[in-house]
Amino acid sequence: MSHPIRIGIVGYGNLGRGVELALGQNHDMSLVGVFTRREPDTVKLVNADVPVYKLADIESFKDKIDVLILCGGSKEDLPKQGPELARWFNTIDSFDTHAKIPDYYEAVDAVARPANKTSIIAVGWDPGLFSLNRLAGEVVLPEGDTYTFWGKGLSQGHSDAVRRVAGVKAGVQYTLPVQEAMDRVRRGESPQLSTREKHRRECYVVLEEGADEATVRNAIVTMPDYFADYDTTVHFVSEAELKAEHSSMPHGGFVIRSGRSGAGTKQVVEYSLTLDSNPEFTSSVLVAYARAAYRLNAKGRYGAKTVFDIAPGLLSPKSAAELRKELL
Amino acid sequence: MSHPIRIGIVGYGNLGRGVELALGQNHDMSLVGVFTRREPDTVKLVNADVPVYKLADIESFKDKIDVLILCGGSKEDLPKQGPELARWFNTIDSFDTHAKIPDYYEAVDAVARPANKTSIIAVGWDPGLFSLNRLAGEVVLPEGDTYTFWGKGLSQGHSDAVRRVAGVKAGVQYTLPVQEAMDRVRRGESPQLSTREKHRRECYVVLEEGADEATVRNAIVTMPDYFADYDTTVHFVSEAELKAEHSSMPHGGFVIRSGRSGAGTKQVVEYSLTLDSNPEFTSSVLVAYARAAYRLNAKGRYGAKTVFDIAPGLLSPKSAAELRKELL
Repeated sequence: MSHPIRIGIVGYGNLGRGVELALGQNHDMSLVGVFTRREPDTVKLVNADVPVYKLADIESFKDKIDVLILCGGSKEDLPKQGPELARWFNTIDSFDTHAKIPDYYEAVDAVARPANKTSIIAVGWDPGLFSLNRLAGEVVLPEGDTYTFWGKGLSQGHSDAVRRVAGVKAGVQYTLPVQEAMDRVRRGESPQLSTREKHRRECYVVLEEGADEATVRNAIVTMPDYFADYDTTVHFVSEAELKAEHSSMPHGGFVIRSGRSGAGTKQVVEYSLTLDSNPEFTSSVLVAYARAAYRLNAKGRYGAKTVFDIAPGLLSPKSAAELRKELL
Repeated sequence: MSHPIRIGIVGYGNLGRGVELALGQNHDMSLVGVFTRREPDTVKLVNADVPVYKLADIESFKDKIDVLILCGGSKEDLPKQGPELARWFNTIDSFDTHAKIPDYYEAVDAVARPANKTSIIAVGWDPGLFSLNRLAGEVVLPEGDTYTFWGKGLSQGHSDAVRRVAGVKAGVQYTLPVQEAMDRVRRGESPQLSTREKHRRECYVVLEEGADEATVRNAIVTMPDYFADYDTTVHFVSEAELKAEHSSMPHGGFVIRSGRSGAGTKQVVEYSLTLDSNPEFTSSVLVAYARAAYRLNAKGRYGAKTVFDIAPGLLSPKSAAELRKELL
């Protein structure tokens, strides 16, 4: 191609930082700049040579950026930014509130389509790569059951809930799949699994001075919605240990399709991720889909899209002929 | 849709039979008939109501069939049938001679494109679903290594080689991944693995009367190309045991991408299949891609395609809106 795909990043938290890093691994792309609602001077990138701009000024970049990667949150940022920015830019985002995806899709599509822009929404690993595996599982094995297990992984929402408990100074929460449930699924038993049977939760907690272990443990494990329906283990650790052992953001999980072909022949398909950094992996997926958005737009395929609409070859910098030769 | 997608099957071996069975699980499709080079009377289908026709008469069905699923072999049948039949029909095939895929693609494309037909070639699990995972692995984690392991699975070619050894009355060969190699890959070690370190081979052999175990074992394990580069175990069994324990066609395998994001963060993606019937699973994949071929053709997307060209949503009988709501 004549020039690298010009990328802009909106929002610079863990995800934005991950996109900056991932662009360094994709040599057909270049980073034009980061756009922030904060004071640009206060945002420190990995690469100090990349400019930081005010998000309010982004319209003036509409001819200088091929794809904008939106790195804000699904609760407050994306519902507003997604439709607004699709007016001027091809966009990628990781909108992950599953129940609201249909509405979000419509809102983005209504703007992107008449503007001749292409927006791929809900990209990442769940929604994203896990969704693709749920789809592939049921189209290849129409008679069967699909199971998604998450973990071992740090859950931001559950960690926040732990930290709100009186007497907790700091803490994190890990979600873990229940090994026995996964084994049953892999054996093709197609079990009906309750919430408690699928996942368990582990908390690492630093107590406030004078707080009581038993009281805090009880407050956590009985918390409705977050913990009451799960087997939860609470470990009390020192602040130093929390920092040393529990500062990274691992995650992952499993999509298993257990189905039957023909006259009841057992067939099992399994997809799994073991991620030392959840945000860096999600960012890497976003960058690959940015390439596809650029190409779809060049072909005149406008409007909102999801991972289900993207031919896999569009994700690769290699030509279709190279892919057939090297990877098929 | 107004009518079910009308499918024809060319060739009725294990794969053709699997397609017949898979069509019974896909209610938006109907089977028009099976086409064979044998005498139609001699071909016994699972469903005796489905007509069997002479392959020589297939041209007269060109307006009665939406997609033809070619179930012949890659060595003799498909190189001839693929290009010939793409003149009159949209086709799906499981051409699996990896090194010859580019030539086969060109041969089919040269016929399908001017005929306004759509042919998806090299569909199945390898090439096919494994190829998709090799592609996804390297686009999401550009810095890393991809490993494909096969097995435990019955290998037709290696079983044939065992049966050609003097003194062997009957036998089968299983390919197995080496557990230690997989564990190293999963730990993110990115090892360089020799042929012997990746897979091992197990043979179950029935001797001819009077044949010598040691001689037969030695002839097998030293056979160039097939066994000499592997650790091979030969088990001698009775004809009854071979029939009882080794008549099915299990297969499967693993595609593992071990990569690094950001500043060296370890990320591992794994895809695996555990198949009690290799041909039935391959057939199920063929049928899902037949749906996509039909839809692409209706959109005017002609010529040869591979799994890399197919947007995943086209594989499902569900609408794009249903997929976004239920599976994303």
